[in-house]
Amino acid sequence: MTLDGSGSTSPIDSFYAVVPAGGAGTRLWPLSRARSPKFLRDLRGSGRSLLQETWDRLSPLCEDRFLVVTGSAHADAVGSQLDKVPAEAILTEPAARDSMAAIGYAAAVLERQDPDAVMGSFAADHVITGEAEFAAAVATAVAVAREGWLVTLGIEPTFPSSAFGYIHAGAPLAGHDGVSVVAEFVEKPSVETATEYLAAGGFRWNAGMFVARPSTILDLLHTWHPAFADRLRELAADPSLVEQAWADLPKIALDHAIAEPAAAAGKVATVPAPFGWDDIGDFDSLATLLGGEEPEGTVVLGEESLVQAVETSGLVVPHDKLVAVVGLDDVVVVDTPDAILVTTRERAQDVKKLVNALKDGGRGDLT
Amino acid sequence: MTLDGSGSTSPIDSFYAVVPAGGAGTRLWPLSRARSPKFLRDLRGSGRSLLQETWDRLSPLCEDRFLVVTGSAHADAVGSQLDKVPAEAILTEPAARDSMAAIGYAAAVLERQDPDAVMGSFAADHVITGEAEFAAAVATAVAVAREGWLVTLGIEPTFPSSAFGYIHAGAPLAGHDGVSVVAEFVEKPSVETATEYLAAGGFRWNAGMFVARPSTILDLLHTWHPAFADRLRELAADPSLVEQAWADLPKIALDHAIAEPAAAAGKVATVPAPFGWDDIGDFDSLATLLGGEEPEGTVVLGEESLVQAVETSGLVVPHDKLVAVVGLDDVVVVDTPDAILVTTRERAQDVKKLVNALKDGGRGDLT
Repeated sequence: MTLDGSGSTSPIDSFYAVVPAGGAGTRLWPLSRARSPKFLRDLRGSGRSLLQETWDRLSPLCEDRFLVVTGSAHADAVGSQLDKVPAEAILTEPAARDSMAAIGYAAAVLERQDPDAVMGSFAADHVITGEAEFAAAVATAVAVAREGWLVTLGIEPTFPSSAFGYIHAGAPLAGHDGVSVVAEFVEKPSVETATEYLAAGGFRWNAGMFVARPSTILDLLHTWHPAFADRLRELAADPSLVEQAWADLPKIALDHAIAEPAAAAGKVATVPAPFGWDDIGDFDSLATLLGGEEPEGTVVLGEESLVQAVETSGLVVPHDKLVAVVGLDDVVVVDTPDAILVTTRERAQDVKKLVNALKDGGRGDLT
Repeated sequence: MTLDGSGSTSPIDSFYAVVPAGGAGTRLWPLSRARSPKFLRDLRGSGRSLLQETWDRLSPLCEDRFLVVTGSAHADAVGSQLDKVPAEAILTEPAARDSMAAIGYAAAVLERQDPDAVMGSFAADHVITGEAEFAAAVATAVAVAREGWLVTLGIEPTFPSSAFGYIHAGAPLAGHDGVSVVAEFVEKPSVETATEYLAAGGFRWNAGMFVARPSTILDLLHTWHPAFADRLRELAADPSLVEQAWADLPKIALDHAIAEPAAAAGKVATVPAPFGWDDIGDFDSLATLLGGEEPEGTVVLGEESLVQAVETSGLVVPHDKLVAVVGLDDVVVVDTPDAILVTTRERAQDVKKLVNALKDGGRGDLT
């Protein structure tokens, strides 16, 4: 059990948390920038960045067995935000090579450190509500992972989202109540297909939360990408090679590199994850996260006294001066030191277009 | 003639321009503030404030016969914007007492200075296009005013506005082609009534541009408000009394004090004014002024490179950082050093509500 009588969580033996901290969060521009990505930002007004909240959530389970993998550009910021995490626990990537390289390298490092290790990989920029449920799901996943499974946490869908991939749960896994073998991972569906998934049952959101022994991850990788797995093990044995070798690693997501083929081979299990989860993909999601499904009036992220809204609904993120809005519904207004964004919740996905337009127009410095 | 062969204008003998510079322009907040009203602002992106443009337009006609009447809070700013206007030509009001006091005091000052004077009063915060037509209309008005008429310039309406009062032209005035006696001034009508006015003809917008001999103004005032007229003449004779006496002057608009009763008495003439005119009452007007009746895309007041608009129309006024807008039609976004406004052209009038809400909420410092 990870949940004691007081509602707090207990450490899980030999459990290592691995947190890849990357991704620009383009659709959250100008809050999120290439140089200051969303995991470094306090997007909930909690006083803690998403990265810090990730640490807050995981450290009761892993204690000091915590690794971050991040780009060299962000290593200092990560270090200063995570003041209890020692410098050697921050693995820096000389270049972004997608999640397989980041998580696979952490696996290779841990494989050498601790033969009993079970690692769980959790993005640095997701929001989770329900700490106790999260802890319980991780504990179950670790128990399953010890048996050699690649385990993924499957989020209970709350609506037919077309923004997430789905995990299709197959046969129950003997000996672990509620756990299933994964039948397949499915790509982001249309809303219609997602609606069918929810009606059918057995489909869960893929939040990219994988739990496994490090050697399980590397051995699976070796099955389909042997040179890649070998290379990661070499780098872990001699980290001085990382700087030069990293850029030549394959750029591929863990999902494609191992999770999907392993599922096809019947080697992936999924643990139901009955907690609230959001990857805050855009300002529409952020507004829902902060204000609920149908927020009344204006949701403010930041100092409420800096917002004056008259007959307005939506999301306002002030910076250091007054933001006044009159007569707009579902508007999004975001002020930052060097850029203001005005859009609507409906057009939140198109912020990506804007960022591209800025890059094309020679204002990449702002992105 | 005020129009010489080169298209430039010539001075008009004994013509004095009087420019009352007041009014907060609440509906143009946050560009216009109580402490920095719209006449001090460059609202056309011309590099000149509305006050400076007013001077630019009038000085060829009046040369150095130029008086500004403004609140003591704005006297320094007015002086520094009008560097060719001597300090003694800036009459300061210790308190705002509406237009009759401001213009009447200027009339009393001029009456003592120059027995041949004809004065014209023009607001400091209106926009006029068509300098030559303006100059010609003023010259005609001065000629009529020399005969003892109170003359008002009647703007040819371009649409049935419900935002302006109208001048109803009556019988033609003998000896002055196109000039009429004013039948009556009518208050701001409904759009329906305004439409009838335009269909009927003979109705013009009242832009508050009055031309008359100073003694005509004071004598008319004496007819209906004798003590007021006497007091203004006393103050002009001994300006040291102004500071103490000003606050006790009646607070009344020139229109109500003299123009309306004088029209009823058949003593007002109107000169057709076939130039473009706008009082820039709100951001909707400003957008039309800057972008035309049906602007395509986004109209920018200020530095174009500070605006990135994707699938957007409306008005954007950047300050010193990027303003990015995605997917909004007829939006208004205004950035200033201490406040950002977001609204729509349709709701432009409701900016007044916002300013009131700020005052009520203890943020009067921003208004």
